[in-house]
Amino acid sequence: MVELALSRRLRRTPFSEGVEAAGVKAYSVYNHMLLPAVFRSPEEDYRHLKEAVQVWDVAVERQVELRGPDAGRLLQMLTPRDLRGMLPGQCYYVPIVDETGGMLNDPVALKLSEDRYWISIADSDLLYWVKGIAYGYRLDVLVDEPDVSPLAVQGPKAEDLVAAVFGEGIRAVRFFRFGLFSFQGRELVVARSGYSKQGGFEIYVDGSDIAMPLWNALFEAGASMDVHAGCPNLIERVEGGLLSYGNDMTDDNTPHECGLGRFCSTQTAIGCIGRDALLRVAKEGPVQQIRAVAIDGPPVPRCDRWWPITANGKRVGRISSAAWSPDFDTNVAVGMVRMTHWDPETEVTVETPDGPRSALVRAEFWA
Amino acid sequence: MVELALSRRLRRTPFSEGVEAAGVKAYSVYNHMLLPAVFRSPEEDYRHLKEAVQVWDVAVERQVELRGPDAGRLLQMLTPRDLRGMLPGQCYYVPIVDETGGMLNDPVALKLSEDRYWISIADSDLLYWVKGIAYGYRLDVLVDEPDVSPLAVQGPKAEDLVAAVFGEGIRAVRFFRFGLFSFQGRELVVARSGYSKQGGFEIYVDGSDIAMPLWNALFEAGASMDVHAGCPNLIERVEGGLLSYGNDMTDDNTPHECGLGRFCSTQTAIGCIGRDALLRVAKEGPVQQIRAVAIDGPPVPRCDRWWPITANGKRVGRISSAAWSPDFDTNVAVGMVRMTHWDPETEVTVETPDGPRSALVRAEFWA
Repeated sequence: MVELALSRRLRRTPFSEGVEAAGVKAYSVYNHMLLPAVFRSPEEDYRHLKEAVQVWDVAVERQVELRGPDAGRLLQMLTPRDLRGMLPGQCYYVPIVDETGGMLNDPVALKLSEDRYWISIADSDLLYWVKGIAYGYRLDVLVDEPDVSPLAVQGPKAEDLVAAVFGEGIRAVRFFRFGLFSFQGRELVVARSGYSKQGGFEIYVDGSDIAMPLWNALFEAGASMDVHAGCPNLIERVEGGLLSYGNDMTDDNTPHECGLGRFCSTQTAIGCIGRDALLRVAKEGPVQQIRAVAIDGPPVPRCDRWWPITANGKRVGRISSAAWSPDFDTNVAVGMVRMTHWDPETEVTVETPDGPRSALVRAEFWA
Repeated sequence: MVELALSRRLRRTPFSEGVEAAGVKAYSVYNHMLLPAVFRSPEEDYRHLKEAVQVWDVAVERQVELRGPDAGRLLQMLTPRDLRGMLPGQCYYVPIVDETGGMLNDPVALKLSEDRYWISIADSDLLYWVKGIAYGYRLDVLVDEPDVSPLAVQGPKAEDLVAAVFGEGIRAVRFFRFGLFSFQGRELVVARSGYSKQGGFEIYVDGSDIAMPLWNALFEAGASMDVHAGCPNLIERVEGGLLSYGNDMTDDNTPHECGLGRFCSTQTAIGCIGRDALLRVAKEGPVQQIRAVAIDGPPVPRCDRWWPITANGKRVGRISSAAWSPDFDTNVAVGMVRMTHWDPETEVTVETPDGPRSALVRAEFWA
């Protein structure tokens, strides 16, 4: 393992003080900001996430705020998902594409009101693209990064913990919906969402000054629930098929390649910048697609670069994320596989740094 | 110090193999890519940089390529620097601003030909802004990130080393000019430039396949020159007043605040997107500006967040980069200081994590 050289350019978050006190052992960097990656160990963090409740500093999910009469029009320009049915209080997973249909980000958008949205972004400066489009089209909209930092509460006991701090009303919030809930006199957006399959909430902490008070309140309220600081867990997210922009997909990939075709209603997404290109892709279908891949043998090393997937010595894809899964007793992985080999149960070879391994393409992810 | 959790999202570079073999001890992350930060120690790397020659993996300086009839028009839209006099073979430091005059990046642009430029970027996804503007204005230009990775050779013996590999012709290349020089049959852009004050070159390695061959050729040719792997050095760059986007400035700052007014010819930079805002700033002058600041006392800790600069208990600025300088026997620092306290020799206080320190605002950086 290597050391991370800290500097102001790798921004701390409003929760960093709490993260450090909780004994963070490793960071990643995401949107020019520190993202905790390990607290106890990836395996311990994984087990605990599935059994109890964790508080995650995901302030790296920076918000791009759209505000003004053209906010809705602008958001529709960015994504092939049809937004006409989106209501205030809803979260939409929105693939963002350029004019060629290449993915620029895969955020969750929140509709705060008819003329105001937050786009909760993955790891790329989406703000720059959105500002450029808004400026180029002379849209009547303000585009900015507000002082809003998401804090996630994830795990089977997440609802109990969030209810203890925000009140019982939180239990009525449905998946990918949000409501406004009060903390120390401030109304915060609390959504039932998050980057795990264990259930939970994301609290959009509006104002850095209340970040540590909220962090502390959650740990106090959760003492009896074995609450612990956590973070997105590689093993758990690969088991669940949660993709990671920059790992599993880049701007070379269309949403269809990423298995996100169900979020594209390109025909009716009038105004979407990548519409022409994606109508073509939707018609012909992608030639490669994201698949769950089970890699045989002992635990694989850390996947810090693409590992080729081969068949009969020919390259047919690449693995982008992989980890040993204690619960499924295999190496779980995310692969981009060519159509010649993407059918379930296809046997392929993965060229890991430890040498070639047999692997099986699967119909579904694990959890 | 904390550990960096590696993943494919933090891209390796075409030189990573050489960097690892050379014993890199710490990384930063820059443009979603690994940037070496320490090899022996910051102090040893510093001393060696000033006395010998280093090879730096600065592949993180990704290129935004503009190609097509509107390439020149687009570049002028991005910057308040007047580009009319720019000739093929020249490098221009070009502050990039949005419509409010806020800095989005501070790259070096290379004019390859009348209709082709590379923008060698600092740490932000400038590609997204440029693509958004090009698309919004329907410009006739291709905008993309090519497979080009800069490798810097820096230090007093840099010219000798580069001449040994690329031939004596390299000695005629003037500062911020470039020429095409042959390596293994490929013509590479070699510029006299780099992120140090010790002199040297940046080689724009066009094609990842020749990256390690070039790396190895430089180390072979430099064996007698005490060549060593190196990286941008915090101490040396602060002594020299080389600013760092994300550390010393953000999109909140105008070029004038960053002391980059000399690169702005806003009056004649017709078409520059931030022109209206910057004409106003140029007229009134900034109310805060980057200054060299000497901080008293023993070596300061690592500056991983802004440190307030105060005077009589009132905040008058912030330190963004700081390091102990062995050569100048003081803590050298970069500060953003309000006009009330920016005159040379003004005494201020810097609130470091170790407590308050006396400090002196200076007229110039050290080297």
